[in-house]
Amino acid sequence: MNATFSLNPSLEADSVPVTTLSLCDVRLMMDASYPWLILVPRLPDAIEIIDLDPETRHQLIDEIAQVSHALRESTGAEKMNVAALGNQVAQLHIHVIARFRNDPAWPGPVWGAADRKAYGPDERDRLIDLLVGRLG
Amino acid sequence: MNATFSLNPSLEADSVPVTTLSLCDVRLMMDASYPWLILVPRLPDAIEIIDLDPETRHQLIDEIAQVSHALRESTGAEKMNVAALGNQVAQLHIHVIARFRNDPAWPGPVWGAADRKAYGPDERDRLIDLLVGRLG
Repeated sequence: MNATFSLNPSLEADSVPVTTLSLCDVRLMMDASYPWLILVPRLPDAIEIIDLDPETRHQLIDEIAQVSHALRESTGAEKMNVAALGNQVAQLHIHVIARFRNDPAWPGPVWGAADRKAYGPDERDRLIDLLVGRLG
Repeated sequence: MNATFSLNPSLEADSVPVTTLSLCDVRLMMDASYPWLILVPRLPDAIEIIDLDPETRHQLIDEIAQVSHALRESTGAEKMNVAALGNQVAQLHIHVIARFRNDPAWPGPVWGAADRKAYGPDERDRLIDLLVGRLG
């Protein structure tokens, strides 16, 4: 086991920081096709949800709920998708994605569904500001 | 709000019962491509994880962990996938899927990746027996 947490380089390259909660770093995926956050628990070597002790699991789902509320309120999402997959990047990270009936993957899942779309800088900063306003 | 819970007919048609936990019905998806369970909280009108109060959310993640352990131990899974999507069937249900590097969707997500494969009756019953032995 490593003693300290460090963010996986691939997650770091694909996302930008939004805020830091008690357990998780919250980051925005750089894909304007969907308002898409990831939560990364700052725990060295965590891969599966079942690697967390029960108290930490409760904290995780509380932060998933907090982020889901903030993302839904910031975007008017019609459905929230929440997932811990980690088939490509093992470091535990939870996707919280705002879905719309007119998004490019609907009703399928987002992974691999469409080419990544760049955010305009203003669009991205506006979304991050809204989220930070709700998440602190 | 409806007063009573009833399982969505589409979830019912796609899966068979495994066991009943305090909060959730646990069911096996009828797709032998992946050992694939769903947890369905017996709560009328729940659609999103954030529809649950904090205590019920904690119960949910405890049951997700319990089912994940049982499924991993029963199958030797190399990775667990956990997801609440609900874009096609709104009733809240959580997928817990045992993944293998040689499964037909790896490393992508399972939804829509491959044609459904039928279980042999013995194969299905053997897996359910293993799961029930671990879940009670």
